[in-house]
Amino acid sequence: MISQDTIVALATPSGAGAIAIIRVSGKEALTISQSIFESVSGKDILKQKSHTIHLGHIVDGPKIYDQVLVSLFKGPNSYTGENVVEISCHGSTYIQQQIIQLLLRKGCKMAEPGEFTLRAFINGKLDLSQAEAVADLISSENEASHQIAMQQMRGGFSNEISKLREELLNFASLIELELDFAEEDVEFADRTQFNDLLNRIEFVLKRLIDSFAVGNVIKNGIPVAIVGEPNVGKSTLLNALLNEERAIVSEIAGTTRDTIEDELVINGIGFRFIDTAGIRETKDIVESIGIKKTFEKIEQAQVILYLFDSLKFKVQSSEYISEIEKVKNKFPLKPLIVVINKVDLLSTEEVAIIRKQLETLNVTLETISAKEKIGVEDLKNQLMSFVNTGALRNNETIVTNSRHYYSLLKAFEEIQKVKFGIATNISSDLMAIDIRQALYYFGEITGQVTNDELLGNIFANFCIGK
Amino acid sequence: MISQDTIVALATPSGAGAIAIIRVSGKEALTISQSIFESVSGKDILKQKSHTIHLGHIVDGPKIYDQVLVSLFKGPNSYTGENVVEISCHGSTYIQQQIIQLLLRKGCKMAEPGEFTLRAFINGKLDLSQAEAVADLISSENEASHQIAMQQMRGGFSNEISKLREELLNFASLIELELDFAEEDVEFADRTQFNDLLNRIEFVLKRLIDSFAVGNVIKNGIPVAIVGEPNVGKSTLLNALLNEERAIVSEIAGTTRDTIEDELVINGIGFRFIDTAGIRETKDIVESIGIKKTFEKIEQAQVILYLFDSLKFKVQSSEYISEIEKVKNKFPLKPLIVVINKVDLLSTEEVAIIRKQLETLNVTLETISAKEKIGVEDLKNQLMSFVNTGALRNNETIVTNSRHYYSLLKAFEEIQKVKFGIATNISSDLMAIDIRQALYYFGEITGQVTNDELLGNIFANFCIGK
Repeated sequence: MISQDTIVALATPSGAGAIAIIRVSGKEALTISQSIFESVSGKDILKQKSHTIHLGHIVDGPKIYDQVLVSLFKGPNSYTGENVVEISCHGSTYIQQQIIQLLLRKGCKMAEPGEFTLRAFINGKLDLSQAEAVADLISSENEASHQIAMQQMRGGFSNEISKLREELLNFASLIELELDFAEEDVEFADRTQFNDLLNRIEFVLKRLIDSFAVGNVIKNGIPVAIVGEPNVGKSTLLNALLNEERAIVSEIAGTTRDTIEDELVINGIGFRFIDTAGIRETKDIVESIGIKKTFEKIEQAQVILYLFDSLKFKVQSSEYISEIEKVKNKFPLKPLIVVINKVDLLSTEEVAIIRKQLETLNVTLETISAKEKIGVEDLKNQLMSFVNTGALRNNETIVTNSRHYYSLLKAFEEIQKVKFGIATNISSDLMAIDIRQALYYFGEITGQVTNDELLGNIFANFCIGK
Repeated sequence: MISQDTIVALATPSGAGAIAIIRVSGKEALTISQSIFESVSGKDILKQKSHTIHLGHIVDGPKIYDQVLVSLFKGPNSYTGENVVEISCHGSTYIQQQIIQLLLRKGCKMAEPGEFTLRAFINGKLDLSQAEAVADLISSENEASHQIAMQQMRGGFSNEISKLREELLNFASLIELELDFAEEDVEFADRTQFNDLLNRIEFVLKRLIDSFAVGNVIKNGIPVAIVGEPNVGKSTLLNALLNEERAIVSEIAGTTRDTIEDELVINGIGFRFIDTAGIRETKDIVESIGIKKTFEKIEQAQVILYLFDSLKFKVQSSEYISEIEKVKNKFPLKPLIVVINKVDLLSTEEVAIIRKQLETLNVTLETISAKEKIGVEDLKNQLMSFVNTGALRNNETIVTNSRHYYSLLKAFEEIQKVKFGIATNISSDLMAIDIRQALYYFGEITGQVTNDELLGNIFANFCIGK
C-alpha cells in the first residue's frame, strides 16, 4: 500500500506568517533537498548528521528562492521512519508555493492528507490508535480532550488493549493446541481459569465501552439548553462564564480565536449552549410552535438551565413555577438547574421567599447576578458536577473514538459467545473461532489487523502535512 | 532600547495545522526551555551543540503538554544573535496557547511585532534595510517583489548605499581636516575630484530615485483601467489572462489563495484591473455622472485598456472611434490599448476593415477572443511592454520602500547643495555641514544613523513572531 515516492507538503497552517515549514519524506528526501540547497558554509547536507540544522539558500540554477534553515532527520530516526527534511522558509504564501513547486519538479509528489502519519504507522513508529491520537491532538480544543489524546498518543490505550489481547492469545493457543489432540479429549486450557480471565476481560471492556459516553462528552462538549425569555440575561451569563477563559486567550496576541458565543470551556470541559425561547403557556398557534421547538431543543441537551429575571419572578412566580413543573415532568431524567438572574436587584428577604417557593419543586437552584459576577462560580461548579470526571482525574483510559468504541462492542459480543460456549460445553474448535474473532477486533484497534480501506478512511480525515 | 527579556511568540501562522513553531529568544532561552523540556533520551539540552534537534516532551511538573522537537541555536549563531530555541509542537491552537502560557509563567515575555528582527538588527546580524526586506519578503506575493526583497535582504541595496557613503566620507574627512587648518587657507580636498565624485553620487542617486517608480509598480501592481460596456467580455478576459497562473496555484492543495478577480500576476508582475463603465456620449444626467466616474478611474490608472465587442464595433464603428479619440485626447500621456474582443465571430476581411479604421488613430490595437484564447498572449506581452523590467532583468537595485525613497531624495538635495557650494566657492565649514547632512540621510537607510522612533515605526509593521 505504501508508495515509494518522496512526498512533500506544507506542515504549518496555510497563510502568511513569520515562518513556514515544508516537510519532505521518503528515500530521496535528502538527495532531492541537496539538489536545491546551498549551505552558507559550503557543507554537503548528505554528509551531515541526523537531527542537525543548516543555514543556506534554496536555489534552482542561478535563481535564489529564499534563505532557509534545513533540518535533517535520517530514517529510521524520524517521524515517518524514513529520511525527512524540514525546510523552514520565510512565511509568504508565494515563497511556500515556489519551494513546493520546485520540489515537485525535482521529483517529489504532493503528500495525501495524513500520509506522513500513515507512513509512520506502516514503518512501525506508531500503532493505529496512536496515529489516530495525533489527529485528535491537533484538533483538541480544550484541556480534557487534549489530555486524553496525549495519553492515547503515548500508548496508554494501546497498552490496555494489548495486555488483554496477549492474555487472551495465551489461552487461545492452549485451546488451539487442544484441537491437535482432539481425539484424545484433553483440556490444556483450564476452563475455570479461562472463565476468570474472560470475566476480567469483560469487566475491562465494559469499563472502556462505558467510558465512551464521557469521552464523547469531552470530545464534543456537553449540550446545555438555556431556556429563558428574552432579556433575562442569557448573553451576559455566557460572557460571565467565559470571562476567565477569554482573559487568558486574549493575553496571547496572534493566537486569539474567533468568539463562538455558544461554546464555552469550563475547567477544561466544553459546554455547548443551545439557546431556546421560553415555554409560556399560550393559546396562540405561533407561540405553540415556539414551545414545540423549545422542547425539541431540550431533547438534544444533557442539562437544562432555566433562566429567570429575579424582578419578573417576584411578580409572577406562580406562573413561572408551573412552567418549571411542566419542563420537569416532560424531562424527568434530565438535570434541571433553575437560575434566578439579577439577584442583586432583590433584597435578601425577597430572595429567601423565592428560595422557599421553589423548595417543594425539588430542583437545583442558583441565584446569581451575571452582571455583578455573583454566584457565577457556584453555577460553574454545578455544571461541572454533571460531568463524570472521575475517570479523567484517575488517569483512566477513556474511549473517544467511535471506531474504537464499535470494535470494543464487537469484541465484547465475542467474549460473551466464548463464555456461553464454556457454559454449554461447546467443542474446542467452535470456541477457537469465537476467540479468534475477539482477537481480530482487538487487533483492529491497534492496527495489528488492518486493510487498505480502513487505513484510507482513517487517514483521509487528517490534515495535509501531518 | 533593547530589553534584556527573553521573548516568546508563535512564529507560524495562527490557526490549526500539522505543526506549529514557538520561538524563544534571549539570554535565558536555553535555561527556560530546559526547565520545561524532558528529552526522550534523557539528554540535558544545555549541554547540546548549537543547531541540533531533540525529541522530547514539554512538561510542567507531572503534567505533560505535548511531544515536541526542540531546535537549539546558540548566540551569536542565531537569527537574533541571542540564544534561540524553536519548539516544534503539534499544531492545535490549544497546545500552542498552553505552551506559550507555560513559557510566560517561566519568565518569558510576549514578543512585540518584529522584535526578533529588531534584535537581529541591534545585534548587527542585519542592517536596517535588510531587516525591512524581511518584512517585504514575507508579504511578497509575486515573483518581482519577491526577487527585489531577496536582493535587498542579501545586502544588494545596502552595499550600493554604503559604497557611496564611504566615498563621500573620505572626502568629508578631508574637508573637515581643512577646518583644522582654516587660517592657513589650504585645500586638502581637490575640488575638481570632489566635483567628479559628487556627479557620480548624483547619478547613482538619480537612478535609485527613478527606480522607485518601477519599485512601486512591482510592490503594488500596475493599475489598468478596463473601459468597456457591459457584456463586451471583461470577466472572460480576466479569466483568460489569469488562466495559466491559476492552474499552477490550484495544483498545490492547501496553499490556494482566495480569488481576487481584479488582481492578476502576469510574468511575475502584478496588475490591478479597475473596472469602469463605457463613456458613451449622452444627454442623460445619470449617464453623465457615470462618464465622470469613468474618467476619475482612468485618472488613477497607468494603462487604459479599451475593450469592444467586435460585432457591435462593426455596426457602430464611427461612434466608437469618436469615443476612443475622446479618451485619447483627455489622457494623451497614458498608454491606450484598444482591444477588439470576440474576433472569432468576424471574417478576416471584417477584421482588416476595423484595423484600417483604427489606423489613423495611432493607438495600440489587439484583436482577441478571450473565450477562444486567441490573441491573449499578445495582449499579455503588450501589457508587459509598459513595465520597465530592464532594471529587474539586469539585477539592478530597485527602491521599493518609501522611507528609503525619501531619504534618497533628501540626500540628493544635500548633494545639490554641496555642488552649489563648490561652484560658489563656499567656505569649508558650511560645506562640511551639508556633507554631514547627506551622510546622515545615507546612514538613515542602512541604520547607521537611527533613533527609537524610527525603529518603532519600522518594526511595528512586522508580524509577531518575526
